[in-house]
Amino acid sequence: MPSLLVDNIGELVTNDAGRGEGGPLGIRRRVALLIEDGEVVWIGPTTDTPSADHRIDAAGSAVLPGFVDSHAHLVFAGDRAAEFAARMAGERYTGGGIRTTVGATRAASDSELRATVRRLRAEALRQGTTTIEIKSGYGLTVVDEARSLRIAAEVSTETTFLGAHVVPAEYAARPDDYVSLVCGPMLAAAAPHARWIDVFCERGAFDADHARAILTCGQAVGLGVRVHANQLGPGPGVQLGVELGAASVDHCTHLTDADVDALVSTRAGDEDGGTTTVATLLPGAEFSTRSPYPDARRLLDAGVTVALATDCNPGSSYTSSMPFCIALAVREMGMTPAEAVWAATAGGARALRRDDIGVLRPGARADLVILDAPSHLHLAYRPGVPLVRQVLHNGVPR
Amino acid sequence: MPSLLVDNIGELVTNDAGRGEGGPLGIRRRVALLIEDGEVVWIGPTTDTPSADHRIDAAGSAVLPGFVDSHAHLVFAGDRAAEFAARMAGERYTGGGIRTTVGATRAASDSELRATVRRLRAEALRQGTTTIEIKSGYGLTVVDEARSLRIAAEVSTETTFLGAHVVPAEYAARPDDYVSLVCGPMLAAAAPHARWIDVFCERGAFDADHARAILTCGQAVGLGVRVHANQLGPGPGVQLGVELGAASVDHCTHLTDADVDALVSTRAGDEDGGTTTVATLLPGAEFSTRSPYPDARRLLDAGVTVALATDCNPGSSYTSSMPFCIALAVREMGMTPAEAVWAATAGGARALRRDDIGVLRPGARADLVILDAPSHLHLAYRPGVPLVRQVLHNGVPR
Repeated sequence: MPSLLVDNIGELVTNDAGRGEGGPLGIRRRVALLIEDGEVVWIGPTTDTPSADHRIDAAGSAVLPGFVDSHAHLVFAGDRAAEFAARMAGERYTGGGIRTTVGATRAASDSELRATVRRLRAEALRQGTTTIEIKSGYGLTVVDEARSLRIAAEVSTETTFLGAHVVPAEYAARPDDYVSLVCGPMLAAAAPHARWIDVFCERGAFDADHARAILTCGQAVGLGVRVHANQLGPGPGVQLGVELGAASVDHCTHLTDADVDALVSTRAGDEDGGTTTVATLLPGAEFSTRSPYPDARRLLDAGVTVALATDCNPGSSYTSSMPFCIALAVREMGMTPAEAVWAATAGGARALRRDDIGVLRPGARADLVILDAPSHLHLAYRPGVPLVRQVLHNGVPR
Repeated sequence: MPSLLVDNIGELVTNDAGRGEGGPLGIRRRVALLIEDGEVVWIGPTTDTPSADHRIDAAGSAVLPGFVDSHAHLVFAGDRAAEFAARMAGERYTGGGIRTTVGATRAASDSELRATVRRLRAEALRQGTTTIEIKSGYGLTVVDEARSLRIAAEVSTETTFLGAHVVPAEYAARPDDYVSLVCGPMLAAAAPHARWIDVFCERGAFDADHARAILTCGQAVGLGVRVHANQLGPGPGVQLGVELGAASVDHCTHLTDADVDALVSTRAGDEDGGTTTVATLLPGAEFSTRSPYPDARRLLDAGVTVALATDCNPGSSYTSSMPFCIALAVREMGMTPAEAVWAATAGGARALRRDDIGVLRPGARADLVILDAPSHLHLAYRPGVPLVRQVLHNGVPR
């Protein structure tokens, strides 16, 4: 594979803390970056660049690691634009609309689902997302969950079995039976296509006992744990996630001090992030449901590791834009631009327990974004503007 | 000029009220649109299309009039990303940073200013903005205001003399002298390049007497009136604008009932919008200064004509994205998606007293946007996502 030099980088966000300025962002200025075989192999001053087969001139722009979107629901059919419009006219979001998408998803062909997943994956990549986690959760039958994950696995290695998204209508009167189905044949069919297991632990979805049972079954077959927790109100999700060693608890809108303490405790002695439970915040959901935002400042000040993700889904957050989430995090959640950029790159990588992405240093994957801007600050300073000029994924320009 | 047929339009927003569904949006479904000599000449069913030299297949997508951004400050030099970051960390926006940009703008060469204007104009066009108003206001000398407008006029016919943006530092002790300069030699040098005159009527900028004096001088040489009004607090700007027959009063964040009544009164008997004073809301500014949003719902319910614009400028709102403003208007200002889309197209046209843009009907300019989405709703439903697939400006694909 020919080598590629990205030259004339004005500001390189490495997320390699301690190397360069900007604290955790590890910012280096006026550098070049050499890629071979899909990996970063060298970073150094533009005055002393090695030879390479190809060259991209970043023209003084900012370059950062590709965004890591660690929470997305891309396998679905149908459109809930009308529900969105009704909500903006005053209706409240309860999560009940998920069942609308379940019906449409079950009725769709594989090729329809595949087309949607690929369209949204491509849309996200154009906006700089080089890694995206994709959940099932709109099938809720053995066959439909398995095919959702099979289709997701065609475009991402970060696939998550979310059979416990809601209790489907046909099991409404007997949720215990649905939990048995999820832990039994559904998990067996899903696990070959999944890396993670996730549960929507919330009033109206799954309580702590059901969630623990499902997540424990998933762990037993080798899946890592993530939890939808504390979105619509206080609840047991965050502490359950910590108890089970979850890589991430997601949403975290309504937290008690004990929840925050539990998250902080997972960082004790964890140098490489291997046992930390990340708080993944999804401000697109609060934007699109007109709900109060989570308090990122409180989490950061306490020492919790924070990630940002899109929650891309047709009901509560139909954005695929990580830059939009960064801008919201700064405007609405008290994060600095640097904290938000870190959370959308390195934070997402931690939430997926990955150390090869979300960082730019020799040995890391050559997933990176060249901005139409001189600084990472512009991602918050210029909200809504498509600032991603070029994306390299595994070292290949897209 | 060869004819062009845009075929297979799934949803056409015409803004031709009374024709089609959706009230003021005048939505028509499954239609085609024929363009000749930069104008729309025919709209009709896809089953009965005329022949044309070229054809674009909209593939069932939504098509709408190009966005009309009636408030932007594109002629400047320098970058205030650091000020933005400090504000997000808690500093308050007072407008004082304008003087930073004035210094950088005066020091810049014509070609530097021209490059920035053209870069931002192109960036806006890619996002669907086919008409953009451009203000001076960072020169604040006779020479620098005139050259700012000369450069703006190279890319837009909608140019606005804003010599009364702030009192420059060198006149701080003698604002009356600055008003005399603006009304005298500065206006004389600016007027040949401008269609409009504007004043920042706000505590800390220009009071009602100064603003009236400047706007009246501008009217005397044939310029139309616009006012920056009631952004940072209550004030006389809106009623002054109404008194002088302004096409638009912009910001309107802090309004009394008397302000709203004054705006409503301008619509009495005004069938074609020729005397209406539009309230142009700029939610990007509230987003980027973390300020309370204007209450669009109150204005709409009272019967005021509302426009949306970006306020694109390096200090308080460095977005060029009309779709972002639409999404904010729906989330934060109580507008329906239909109202926000109308305000960003037809509303902007009213704010510029234009009837050839912001509308798609035979005789209108062929300025239009083809979305990567089946409905205009997606502009609010999918915030932050670049949904503009193709832009036609004067009938020419860009």
